[in-house]
Amino acid sequence: MDAAEFRKRGKEMVDYVADYLEKIDKRQVFPDVEPGYLRPLIPDCAPQDPESFEDVFKDIEKIIMPGAASPACTELETVMLDWLGKMINLPEEFLAGKDGQGGGVIQGSASEATLISLLAARTKTIRRVQSENPELTEAEIMGRLVAYASDQAHSSVERAALIGGVKIKNVSSDDKFTVCGSALKKVLDEDKASGLIPFFFCATLGTTPCCSFDRLLELGPICNKENIWMHIDAAYAGSAFICPEFRHLLNGVEFADSFNFNPHKWLLVNFDCSAMWVKKRSDLIGAFKLEPLYLQHHHQERFRSLKLWFVLRMYGVTGLQEHIRKHVRLSHQFEHLVLQDERFEICAEVVLGLVCFRLKGSNELNKALLKSINEAKKIHLVPCYLREKFVLRFAVCSRTVESTHVKFAWQHISQLATDLLQTWEHDDHQQ
Amino acid sequence: MDAAEFRKRGKEMVDYVADYLEKIDKRQVFPDVEPGYLRPLIPDCAPQDPESFEDVFKDIEKIIMPGAASPACTELETVMLDWLGKMINLPEEFLAGKDGQGGGVIQGSASEATLISLLAARTKTIRRVQSENPELTEAEIMGRLVAYASDQAHSSVERAALIGGVKIKNVSSDDKFTVCGSALKKVLDEDKASGLIPFFFCATLGTTPCCSFDRLLELGPICNKENIWMHIDAAYAGSAFICPEFRHLLNGVEFADSFNFNPHKWLLVNFDCSAMWVKKRSDLIGAFKLEPLYLQHHHQERFRSLKLWFVLRMYGVTGLQEHIRKHVRLSHQFEHLVLQDERFEICAEVVLGLVCFRLKGSNELNKALLKSINEAKKIHLVPCYLREKFVLRFAVCSRTVESTHVKFAWQHISQLATDLLQTWEHDDHQQ
Repeated sequence: MDAAEFRKRGKEMVDYVADYLEKIDKRQVFPDVEPGYLRPLIPDCAPQDPESFEDVFKDIEKIIMPGAASPACTELETVMLDWLGKMINLPEEFLAGKDGQGGGVIQGSASEATLISLLAARTKTIRRVQSENPELTEAEIMGRLVAYASDQAHSSVERAALIGGVKIKNVSSDDKFTVCGSALKKVLDEDKASGLIPFFFCATLGTTPCCSFDRLLELGPICNKENIWMHIDAAYAGSAFICPEFRHLLNGVEFADSFNFNPHKWLLVNFDCSAMWVKKRSDLIGAFKLEPLYLQHHHQERFRSLKLWFVLRMYGVTGLQEHIRKHVRLSHQFEHLVLQDERFEICAEVVLGLVCFRLKGSNELNKALLKSINEAKKIHLVPCYLREKFVLRFAVCSRTVESTHVKFAWQHISQLATDLLQTWEHDDHQQ
Repeated sequence: MDAAEFRKRGKEMVDYVADYLEKIDKRQVFPDVEPGYLRPLIPDCAPQDPESFEDVFKDIEKIIMPGAASPACTELETVMLDWLGKMINLPEEFLAGKDGQGGGVIQGSASEATLISLLAARTKTIRRVQSENPELTEAEIMGRLVAYASDQAHSSVERAALIGGVKIKNVSSDDKFTVCGSALKKVLDEDKASGLIPFFFCATLGTTPCCSFDRLLELGPICNKENIWMHIDAAYAGSAFICPEFRHLLNGVEFADSFNFNPHKWLLVNFDCSAMWVKKRSDLIGAFKLEPLYLQHHHQERFRSLKLWFVLRMYGVTGLQEHIRKHVRLSHQFEHLVLQDERFEICAEVVLGLVCFRLKGSNELNKALLKSINEAKKIHLVPCYLREKFVLRFAVCSRTVESTHVKFAWQHISQLATDLLQTWEHDDHQQ
């Protein structure tokens, strides 16, 4: 939607809201529909091609308003997550369908999804261990539980363990910053030998520092064999799986118990919209007792599935694929520009929209370069450490980014590097 | 704001957003301001009288845009919670001020606030007990921790304990559905004698079933003496404390460690905006290690303090007080109508905007009445049980509610009761 259409549609929406409020006392206080009314009214997968705003909007009066906030909100969410699940070719076990055991739910962030799966895994494990060892108290079992994640995983995994009151250990990633089966196996064997109970592994697809991918096909069978809940955090990278050429990165998801990615990160849906799927909804219901989708009852008021519905229909699958492909193309464009300049190096394989790079030289030199880039305020980069190396991260993420912006950014960085290196050599900062 | 002004302002906002997006490439990518820039730019308390939309909006360009999302978002939130805290006359220890140890933060719901305080209390207690008893492991301590709340408390307290992996016990409320000091003392003594470690008490001001109030002035000193974290959940009732005549209900808050109420429930702020204050921010930082306001970093993108800023300024303190007083007046109007009808009884003291009432008679009769009310779909009531009694709840909550609506509702209920009683007696349903 361009700015002109946005102005037009936005103003129509303002009138729609004002009309609604003015006539609210003419509306029924409770909907007539029966639970389950919504699914038969809409297609069972997202459209390939874009639909017009008018067509999508017409369905608001036709499909949503008769169901008001409840049950329309919950039902649309379930159906939208089936659409999205099909777009990334999730195994059918993760879909709700008409009467599946799995299904999806919208969370506020990947951190929440990780926490919820860890807690569900904790409850499930405590019950299993207690049934096998009735002499153990819940507290004794809790004290022996261990969760795992890559040393490259997001800090929210550690925080989830902290909240859940269980131990967490890092699994060492290899020289490509990915966790392989043997690394997990090693730490599991040690921990089991010392009496601990491994119960949860969070695999990362697209790590925050350098967008590396844990090896699901090796890790999954180990987790399944050891009764370990495997959760997959694909917060950023998950959106790319709608393109067949990137879907192989998700191979092995069939071994997972839960999977999450954030359409608000890279699929043009406004914050917040973090999509989470589980194979067995009953695991969540079991863990939280009181409500099927715990912590979520109050989120109904936000009706987050509406924005997903609009985006999926107004872009269509092909439009969203184009968006992803363009970003990946632009990050490769940046990668090539870096590679043509002998002063620089690429620090991790460029798979999606992130390029990790640095000047060949000390961390101090690279910190100085970052400082001059960010102080100029033309572009903004967030750095990271990969092992002991201080690394700059170029992330393609705006909806409106074009090749000219990438060129501009590289020329700017390159010029600042030239300026810096002149002073740097002159001042003899090198150590 | 009436519908006409809403149409005008809404459309101006659409243009503002479109202009912003069209010219985004002319904006700096990072703000020039220094952390702490915002507080000196705005008053240190909410205005008494309403300000115009123009005046509030002008400050967006002047105060917010130069600070972009960060640090403006965090800083405005801290200052707005100081404003709100002052409006309900919270003890100064709970305010952030320029360099206080306390302060407020916006959560998504009262459930989240309860969870966060329980987790902070858990960490604090484990550290204290471990320093006093170095021979105890963390798991052993965890296994002995107990949290408490009224048998009238919201289910989210139980869920928080479930998530935190600690025991929770109900404290019996008295015949007014409130928890008094002796009831808490009794269960604490029993539990301590059997080796448990009481660590957390959630007091409720304005319970969900009947809006009863726990006795803070008795409970607070007990909690302080016993090293028990006292959290106060005033989700609904808290908004009323902006009126001096209701502020006494909050007396005793000075004994609490944390306090929460939901401006999105009764202070005309859109969902979600749940205000939480702590006396010691370091307790939260200590509990979650990684970030001062854990689970909240991703919420920055929502900038929830903006809507609080607009509402507090456009209504002013007096406008919001009027809103609360009107609702309380209308609930008393409904109470009087009920009391004039001898077929009905009032089931709990009417303090704020909620009236619990029922037909004198069996639960079955009252269930039948509720069914006929909700099936008519003119008004909608959510029932509850008070002890063994099935009770109907009339809640005044709409921004636009007037005395005529209350009269209409009562006439409608009264007529349905007449119809029901005729059939009921005829069919001899009574047991």
